Amino acid sequence: MTRKINFNAGPAGLPLPVLERAQKELLDFEGTGMSILEHSHRGKDYGRVHEGTLALFSELMGLPKTHDALLVQGGASLQFAMLPMNFLKPGASADYLVTGHWAKLALQEARRAGTARAAADCKDGDGAYTRLPRPEEVKVDPKAAYLHLTTNNTIYGTQWNEFPDPKGVPLVADMSSDILSRPPQAEKFALIYAGAQKNLGPAGLALVAVNREWLKEARADVPDILRYQVHLDKKSLAHTPPTFAVYLVWLTLGWIKANGGAAAMAVRNQAKADLLYAALDRLSGFYRVPAAKEARSRMNALFRAPSPELDEAFCAEAAKAGMAGLKGHRATGGMRASLYNAVSLDDVKTLVAFAEDFARRRG
Amino acid sequence: MTRKINFNAGPAGLPLPVLERAQKELLDFEGTGMSILEHSHRGKDYGRVHEGTLALFSELMGLPKTHDALLVQGGASLQFAMLPMNFLKPGASADYLVTGHWAKLALQEARRAGTARAAADCKDGDGAYTRLPRPEEVKVDPKAAYLHLTTNNTIYGTQWNEFPDPKGVPLVADMSSDILSRPPQAEKFALIYAGAQKNLGPAGLALVAVNREWLKEARADVPDILRYQVHLDKKSLAHTPPTFAVYLVWLTLGWIKANGGAAAMAVRNQAKADLLYAALDRLSGFYRVPAAKEARSRMNALFRAPSPELDEAFCAEAAKAGMAGLKGHRATGGMRASLYNAVSLDDVKTLVAFAEDFARRRG
Repeated sequence: MTRKINFNAGPAGLPLPVLERAQKELLDFEGTGMSILEHSHRGKDYGRVHEGTLALFSELMGLPKTHDALLVQGGASLQFAMLPMNFLKPGASADYLVTGHWAKLALQEARRAGTARAAADCKDGDGAYTRLPRPEEVKVDPKAAYLHLTTNNTIYGTQWNEFPDPKGVPLVADMSSDILSRPPQAEKFALIYAGAQKNLGPAGLALVAVNREWLKEARADVPDILRYQVHLDKKSLAHTPPTFAVYLVWLTLGWIKANGGAAAMAVRNQAKADLLYAALDRLSGFYRVPAAKEARSRMNALFRAPSPELDEAFCAEAAKAGMAGLKGHRATGGMRASLYNAVSLDDVKTLVAFAEDFARRRG
Repeated sequence: MTRKINFNAGPAGLPLPVLERAQKELLDFEGTGMSILEHSHRGKDYGRVHEGTLALFSELMGLPKTHDALLVQGGASLQFAMLPMNFLKPGASADYLVTGHWAKLALQEARRAGTARAAADCKDGDGAYTRLPRPEEVKVDPKAAYLHLTTNNTIYGTQWNEFPDPKGVPLVADMSSDILSRPPQAEKFALIYAGAQKNLGPAGLALVAVNREWLKEARADVPDILRYQVHLDKKSLAHTPPTFAVYLVWLTLGWIKANGGAAAMAVRNQAKADLLYAALDRLSGFYRVPAAKEARSRMNALFRAPSPELDEAFCAEAAKAGMAGLKGHRATGGMRASLYNAVSLDDVKTLVAFAEDFARRRG
């Protein structure tokens, strides 16, 4: 079997050792005589996995003592709704930094649950989001219930490096597409959430870190299953968790730790992104990178060939050469190479060599 | 490796052929060079699984043309909240048949989202639910937005056979613990939901069937991710679905179909339950079945030995003999054998032989 090089935007490639271990013990988890899929979520065997996941996540995120980790079903999209349902009291308003597709969806969902406004919107004349707001463009309402940002914009290929000053307003981050790809500066955030399916495991689970003090201000008059406080009180067992998804996240967090943690991931991811962007810049007569240089994402590198036909040929030929998932999102066209933690430097070298050869042949 | 006989209440045992196939192709789904875990939810390979799951579920459920199938993250607990959020308009009230722990939780969650009442509550003097309401005990409000029931009560071991007359009120069922264990009579219900982790696959997914006409009456002013209509319009791809959970449900539905569908499951499950209850009745000097005879569940058989100490010894000795998951819920004590689709008649024969021997030795 030849495994593809996987540049998917999410769900995305998982570390091979994680998949190999999951495969090996799929019928018999650690000699217990049953699959982890078949274990009770109340039993001690799954309990080890569950608690281990919360502990590893807290450790690798460098969560301050003020924060707790939670496992919540539903992915980031449910977080778009849970966040305002918990923290937007009647009469309150929340601020959102609109830097891309998902940031905009988060704002729209907040508006269905309460009042929310764009504290910045850096859409350009073409309707695309190729840069991030400059500090003077961010107009935070000092009375906002929170300020929400998306640390990495998967579809447009931009990523925050220095987070904006929230001016005392609780800062909330959707880190779905760059969680644990670098040290997360968790202490800056009142709440962090991330769907697992990019850097942490499979689709079907969101990881959340929340400041306990801030959580005390949350609404209690919403359904229990949608209250962070309930998930915290019940240690993320308020209902049956998606046990296999948690197990795979546990294995992936273990792999991140064994490979040096968030700091080491950052070094590795910087090297991968540098290699690819340097090649694209070298070949700037052929390829174009739409994202502003200072905002380029180390997780999702967008680039274009000189025509849509050449974009299509690039993706088709790359697929034949064993590289999957390079087609850009339908909102942007072009190519997108997602470089999550599980993508290796060698994978990127293969892509760069292909891109160089393609430009030579088609340029 | 010796696999345990798994009587877990959920997450529960999966059919061995399902696990074996998942294991075989965990690194390479159908020759695509990547795990199904790593495929994009927008790609054609996962697309086949996704559409296949919806089609197989509709077929095996015998859904009438008026109904559509949906895949929704979050399990039955999120359905407890979504149902009233969608169908309880301001000023409306919903009716619930309180027949056990989960039915009560569903009612409580509805009360956090709107107005709801118990149309029956068959709790007995000890606070337990050992029977179902008699027809004359069910007082349906003819103006109720819907009437909710739990077809099988996992914790108390009771199961509806003939559903109550909803008197024209839309009937909604939580079928989490007996879905596709028998023909579901789907045409009687405006909406059916079920967490997958008992009869259909792993934890982390709810399957829903809804009447499209009734759905038109639902509220549109709730967050998108919590609207059934949005999940329907987007073919259950409104956000990233839990792709591996869907894949396992797809395999499990295929296994149910290959084994004769819901009707054949019913015959098999009846035989399993008959075998166990007959033995317990034969040994009624030792074991006691708390559930009323006419309400006994074919999915979760509860029984007790003459003392809590003997209950504990039963579970401990059964575990040593390779049978897991027999300890009753903390609300009831005693034993509970969950007999979901993946449990074989031979598994039940092993349990019966053990129970007979235990009674002989300890009686």
